[in-house]
Amino acid sequence: MFIHASGEYLPERVVDNDYFSRLTGRPSPWFEQLTGIRQRRRAGEGENANSMAIAAVKHLLRTGDANLEDIDLIIGASYTPWDTIGTIAHVLQREFSLANARAMYLSTACSSFIDAIDMASAYFASGRSTKALVVASEHNSLYSSDGDEKSGHLWGDGAAALILGNTPGKLQLEVLDTHTVGLADRGKGPFGITMVPRDGGLVMHHGKDIFVHACREMAGMARLLLERNKLTVGDVRLVIPHQANKRIIDSVADDLGLAPQRVALTIGELGNTGCASVAITLHRYAHKLEPGEYALLIAFGGGYSAAGALVRRAP
Amino acid sequence: MFIHASGEYLPERVVDNDYFSRLTGRPSPWFEQLTGIRQRRRAGEGENANSMAIAAVKHLLRTGDANLEDIDLIIGASYTPWDTIGTIAHVLQREFSLANARAMYLSTACSSFIDAIDMASAYFASGRSTKALVVASEHNSLYSSDGDEKSGHLWGDGAAALILGNTPGKLQLEVLDTHTVGLADRGKGPFGITMVPRDGGLVMHHGKDIFVHACREMAGMARLLLERNKLTVGDVRLVIPHQANKRIIDSVADDLGLAPQRVALTIGELGNTGCASVAITLHRYAHKLEPGEYALLIAFGGGYSAAGALVRRAP
Repeated sequence: MFIHASGEYLPERVVDNDYFSRLTGRPSPWFEQLTGIRQRRRAGEGENANSMAIAAVKHLLRTGDANLEDIDLIIGASYTPWDTIGTIAHVLQREFSLANARAMYLSTACSSFIDAIDMASAYFASGRSTKALVVASEHNSLYSSDGDEKSGHLWGDGAAALILGNTPGKLQLEVLDTHTVGLADRGKGPFGITMVPRDGGLVMHHGKDIFVHACREMAGMARLLLERNKLTVGDVRLVIPHQANKRIIDSVADDLGLAPQRVALTIGELGNTGCASVAITLHRYAHKLEPGEYALLIAFGGGYSAAGALVRRAP
Repeated sequence: MFIHASGEYLPERVVDNDYFSRLTGRPSPWFEQLTGIRQRRRAGEGENANSMAIAAVKHLLRTGDANLEDIDLIIGASYTPWDTIGTIAHVLQREFSLANARAMYLSTACSSFIDAIDMASAYFASGRSTKALVVASEHNSLYSSDGDEKSGHLWGDGAAALILGNTPGKLQLEVLDTHTVGLADRGKGPFGITMVPRDGGLVMHHGKDIFVHACREMAGMARLLLERNKLTVGDVRLVIPHQANKRIIDSVADDLGLAPQRVALTIGELGNTGCASVAITLHRYAHKLEPGEYALLIAFGGGYSAAGALVRRAP
């Protein structure tokens, strides 16, 4: 499976740590020390997970060397949906006139984007699809509360889009392997963090449990994919981790023995953009891969779930 | 792909047409004349899409001749989720200790259950899964308004569960073919009916457009699957349609030339239970299939989407 093009959309409004300092009374530097987050984007009036998904695809079409012809599978990933009937996938189908494509909306929390790639690869391998549009879009601020001292400051909004094909594209990026697994039987599982539209929205109940499992499971997912593909950490040019907390990323990098320049980061500028974080970070870092170099995408999601994908630029 | 067992859960509380007559001032018989719905079930205090999904699987385990050993894929389908992070799939994984399974939450509105079967069959065909738990669960009343004269009276709550395997189960039911397609480029598409948690919940905007497309697309989906499998309508013992409105089902039956005894119905008792409706109706009618007989599952969903599956009891 090949990545033909990517695009992103980040809303204009920037929210810095001074804002959360005023709200909570904590000193402004505390937020960056704890999470690595300096600022995040916020969807504006009238924006939502559907509209940001459309904007990310428009960006892809403006800047990427690919088109939407023959798309036969659309997967919209998000745990902060605007509409669960007129889903991301459906509004994309309508906006870009993608007739006769499957249109599916998926959530496995922060691992949804990689799970969507895994799902597309299952559809490709089964012969039911040959070209897919996968879009991750999160509107965290729709469901989170800025005054929530535990997690209000973490969340950013944003979206990113990929075109996947079963033949190589001009970008020369191949998805060599994917792996996804539910981990709800571990730790606090589905009670660690919840996104209940009718009961509190996005609430982190057990931050420490999530932190511990995210560190362990992202490193474990990296090792699983490396071993299965007979690679070592040294063979990987870039690790593109879910951007939940810089301290989680540092712990994973330390565990795997990764030098800082081999870890892709967007969290400082964008905060935790949910399942869009790996997608946006992939979009921003993919061009750094030289011919033959590998990148490893890894995510841990609330629920819990873990997912990974091994990507290589053609030699 | 084979169906090993099924189960269902319907909440206890029954809401009849007199209730909607009192709310809206319309005569009680009007509701049944318009929709075929006499009553619907309503989730009670503390019940939701997650808890109903668990209850449906418990029912499956009590009454079906199957088990959850070696489940490696869990798909929870719903457009009325309780939690989009601690999803249906995740709470099932935790409740039934289904370690190492993929856990995914899916919505394509009312076609989600058949789309979930299609997704499972793609995972099976790709060699990534051999046994799946697919659960459709809808909590329409969480997001609908009883006083909504257009559609408040349509909605029922409920859930159903299937175990799917790549080897035959004792039930001797095989899924021979599936087909799903997004239709958001047609008619009112994603604007026909919306489920926006933060803006009005479940609202039907263009009932007539949905009605017309549901009639056309469900009949079209039946014909597509029949032709692809070199069957005629006469070869099918049972059509199990999405239960949105008895008049839609009558129109599809009329279009296809189906005698009433060959159409599976639960709408009178249960109303429109969303994507759970085909799942519940399949559970209630599957035992009617004699060896070698075919059933055809067909659904049209908001968004829009259409989906179908061809099932046969082993000869």
